[in-house]
Amino acid sequence: MEKKIGFIGLGTIGIHMAQNLIKSGYHLQVYNRTLSKADELDPAYVTKCQTPANAAEGVHIVITILSDDDVLKEITLGNQGIMEKLPEHALHISMSTVSPETSEHLTLLHEEAGSHYLAAPLFGRAEAAEARKLWICVSGDQHAKDTAKPVLDCLGQGVIDFGESAGGANVVKIAGNFMIMASMEMMAEAYTLAEKNGLDRAQVASFFGSTLFNVPIFQNYGRAIANKQYEPVGFKSKLGYKDARLAFKLSQTSQTPMPLVNALHSRLLSAVAKGWGEADWIEAIGRGVSEDAGV
Amino acid sequence: MEKKIGFIGLGTIGIHMAQNLIKSGYHLQVYNRTLSKADELDPAYVTKCQTPANAAEGVHIVITILSDDDVLKEITLGNQGIMEKLPEHALHISMSTVSPETSEHLTLLHEEAGSHYLAAPLFGRAEAAEARKLWICVSGDQHAKDTAKPVLDCLGQGVIDFGESAGGANVVKIAGNFMIMASMEMMAEAYTLAEKNGLDRAQVASFFGSTLFNVPIFQNYGRAIANKQYEPVGFKSKLGYKDARLAFKLSQTSQTPMPLVNALHSRLLSAVAKGWGEADWIEAIGRGVSEDAGV
Amino acid sequence: MEKKIGFIGLGTIGIHMAQNLIKSGYHLQVYNRTLSKADELDPAYVTKCQTPANAAEGVHIVITILSDDDVLKEITLGNQGIMEKLPEHALHISMSTVSPETSEHLTLLHEEAGSHYLAAPLFGRAEAAEARKLWICVSGDQHAKDTAKPVLDCLGQGVIDFGESAGGANVVKIAGNFMIMASMEMMAEAYTLAEKNGLDRAQVASFFGSTLFNVPIFQNYGRAIANKQYEPVGFKSKLGYKDARLAFKLSQTSQTPMPLVNALHSRLLSAVAKGWGEADWIEAIGRGVSEDAGV
Amino acid sequence: MEKKIGFIGLGTIGIHMAQNLIKSGYHLQVYNRTLSKADELDPAYVTKCQTPANAAEGVHIVITILSDDDVLKEITLGNQGIMEKLPEHALHISMSTVSPETSEHLTLLHEEAGSHYLAAPLFGRAEAAEARKLWICVSGDQHAKDTAKPVLDCLGQGVIDFGESAGGANVVKIAGNFMIMASMEMMAEAYTLAEKNGLDRAQVASFFGSTLFNVPIFQNYGRAIANKQYEPVGFKSKLGYKDARLAFKLSQTSQTPMPLVNALHSRLLSAVAKGWGEADWIEAIGRGVSEDAGV
Repeated sequence: MEKKIGFIGLGTIGIHMAQNLIKSGYHLQVYNRTLSKADELDPAYVTKCQTPANAAEGVHIVITILSDDDVLKEITLGNQGIMEKLPEHALHISMSTVSPETSEHLTLLHEEAGSHYLAAPLFGRAEAAEARKLWICVSGDQHAKDTAKPVLDCLGQGVIDFGESAGGANVVKIAGNFMIMASMEMMAEAYTLAEKNGLDRAQVASFFGSTLFNVPIFQNYGRAIANKQYEPVGFKSKLGYKDARLAFKLSQTSQTPMPLVNALHSRLLSAVAKGWGEADWIEAIGRGVSEDAGV
Repeated sequence: MEKKIGFIGLGTIGIHMAQNLIKSGYHLQVYNRTLSKADELDPAYVTKCQTPANAAEGVHIVITILSDDDVLKEITLGNQGIMEKLPEHALHISMSTVSPETSEHLTLLHEEAGSHYLAAPLFGRAEAAEARKLWICVSGDQHAKDTAKPVLDCLGQGVIDFGESAGGANVVKIAGNFMIMASMEMMAEAYTLAEKNGLDRAQVASFFGSTLFNVPIFQNYGRAIANKQYEPVGFKSKLGYKDARLAFKLSQTSQTPMPLVNALHSRLLSAVAKGWGEADWIEAIGRGVSEDAGV
Repeated sequence: MEKKIGFIGLGTIGIHMAQNLIKSGYHLQVYNRTLSKADELDPAYVTKCQTPANAAEGVHIVITILSDDDVLKEITLGNQGIMEKLPEHALHISMSTVSPETSEHLTLLHEEAGSHYLAAPLFGRAEAAEARKLWICVSGDQHAKDTAKPVLDCLGQGVIDFGESAGGANVVKIAGNFMIMASMEMMAEAYTLAEKNGLDRAQVASFFGSTLFNVPIFQNYGRAIANKQYEPVGFKSKLGYKDARLAFKLSQTSQTPMPLVNALHSRLLSAVAKGWGEADWIEAIGRGVSEDAGV
Repeated sequence: MEKKIGFIGLGTIGIHMAQNLIKSGYHLQVYNRTLSKADELDPAYVTKCQTPANAAEGVHIVITILSDDDVLKEITLGNQGIMEKLPEHALHISMSTVSPETSEHLTLLHEEAGSHYLAAPLFGRAEAAEARKLWICVSGDQHAKDTAKPVLDCLGQGVIDFGESAGGANVVKIAGNFMIMASMEMMAEAYTLAEKNGLDRAQVASFFGSTLFNVPIFQNYGRAIANKQYEPVGFKSKLGYKDARLAFKLSQTSQTPMPLVNALHSRLLSAVAKGWGEADWIEAIGRGVSEDAGV
């Protein structure tokens, strides 16, 4: 039946996406490393699977939302992976933050196998995922994009098409995460400068967040940075570091010197080296700036 | 009479401020290095003055909006400067982007002379000045802030009070200009990365400007950066470099290491070294990133 | 017979090493991508081979001196590669500048095949290679180091043992190349600073090279940098960039933030992006600093 | 009498210089903030003075060796300063590490007063000062250089002439101190990289110090950095930071972007911000790199 799809990855974002797909009437064949996570979903619409291959069996679409390139490749190509059971002509919608190289590589392998791959990374934290407010970037084959559209429309407030290249959407996602990190760093520097000059960090953050920079990224991250409010952990520093590495690597492969990417990469590398990998990336950046300044 | 004030500095921003003060019923004693600039103002409400001292003579308020610390000090303390004629108890509202040290220094000198000084730097480009949409930051003596309030309300959409310190408002202004520059640099890097990976700079800029970063700074500067549209010149690189120096100096005096300030300072220093000082700071940053990447 | 060894890689350094081995009485089975390069060697002591496998056939030692990790892996593991014919118990002495990961990987593969691998990277340019003045770093299995010793003694003025780890010597080599690059960058910056302050670059370079920094690296590179003498090309920028990437990658994998490595990586990445990949790395650095300064 | 000269500044270097001048037969009119320091000198050849003016009274040469620009200006121009008593035609030999601007400024003021100023900064730590092994850089008026020569020859192993400009020698000194700091930073990064890859820091330092970088700067600082031996304090971080500021300022005024200067400036600024200002600059750099790497 048409409305059955595979769904792999019940992380912070994935779980809300799965719920929204169920609300839209889809039945999900779910795989997750910790499968008990699927108990949060309505069992009437869920088939729990022991392997990625089982999740991909008999569906025309399988969605993956995973932590990094290596996990995506293992889930797709490894033993009991998606490719072992994905039907011919079926589509793999890959929503993880991965390098464009990985998308190019998987696109080729899917083509060889008679199936399809579509890069569809997204912007938004858990609350946005829950509220169907994600922004989803896609690029690749037109037919794949057409097939994916109705499914993606259930997940976000917009699907933006960045052309025919297999990895273009991944480039946009990596660029965007860099811009978010750079926004956090600039606020941490500015508010620490204000603090060391006798001003109230929170007032300065509030001013910028309600005037020149009145968007949620500056408002929400800005409040956390100003108040040195580093918990609960929303997005781990080690994942932020992974994103910084992706941006750095892309700057290498495309020969684009990017001084701010360098600075952010150093910031997050140092955070991980200091043992803050499990802390929120707001802490990696905010505390990093503060400690360098001796406060 | 109450409604007569001194006004010094008819630059890109100053000219609109003067017009708005006139619209609000003020009569201005105007001084400008190029005094013919005052011909753009309604002569019924303007007295042209040959020196800063004359502009300050007999008023209870004199406003300065000048290019840098040195000019402000010269206009205030130099031969035929404000201090020679400013009446006792009168208030000097200083709206230029200058260092907090300069504000502290001038506050002391005004106090010694029996007059007052108020730092009141602003955010906004020429269009915002024209539309009374500036954001004005103030800090210092409460009485000075109270006296300035009705005048400043004629110029912007908000006056924000950053406390009692003489230079606090200048710190906020410097921090804000750094954040604007950092926003430009991050966009230039991100959009060049996109370009070198085969994407359309303008589409990427449009996406970010209408989603995660939907504020004018990212929209307007973003469009110019994406399109490599560097003219007409709105804000000169040499002034941007001055602002980067102010931020750098503040990071030194307050012992706040700021990696992004370093990066921006280098970017603008290099622009000036290459002879682009008269070009718009969008060009300094955008073209700088492009040239480093060989495009 | 004992004195026959395989030799792969007749580049700028390799050709002199081969000549010195011949002078020491070795007979070489030579492979090089451009095999005609072997015509420079005494034919009485050379067997030209059409493949790496042939060069490794029947010898107890094969030496490789190649441009990067990928070439080394292809020559060793590829079709007609060393592993196809290298005898059991034979030793592969790997003198290229490669990552420690590559050495660890090849060590394992050699062990599985019953042969041995030794990392033995070197310091010194062509003249040092010719004069048997190279410094050779080794690390790995003790037996392998003992076997290699008499051969390596024919090539340099010292063999330094950095312990048992497969890749330790590569780490030292990568660290050393970073230090050389950083020395060049610091001179380029210092001498350009001198120039822009009205001093004679060459005199300043001569002063430092004969006092505080009186070692060949500072003297020879210093003279070239001071005189902007970028030809003939000794070591290509694209190879320098490769070394910067190795250093950067090592800083990532070992979680060691290294600001100067960042700066050098950016410098060489930008040089390659600007199309200077075939120019000497002295030019990449020297001209890079000059252009940023507008001279 | 010819052999009487003024001498101001009995710091770590100054005290040895004073001793060597006495050994060469000079009688010194000494001023030091802590005058008891002069008790270390042979009283037969010393006149203790209560003010800089007294030290300069009646001599044809006065030497200053002080901590920074501000102290030099105060000692020279302040109340009871040198200028109050220095005879006409006398020469002020300024051996402190100061900006070229200060030398230009003092040269003009001396000229107006009918006396002379010569920038003569030096390279070498206390042991070198004691052993008359300093390198002394001079620039300025030829007659001043001729007059100073016999005195300077008593203090070092070489006097190098960098031309006619008042501040040229200061530029060389600032460039050299930057090169020393950059050498320390590159070693700290390289040896920490080695450590985190399982190698012995000290062995790596010993290797580079006896081969490619066999000069005292790399050997002595290298040993201290490798062994994390940060005491006794030879040169304070806050003075190192002052030197980094001088280099940075010079890069600004001469429009020379210098990425390594940026990195060093940040390193030392952060050390001072963290409260390490009184620690040796080896600690500022060595410990800074280690802490960023979490070791």
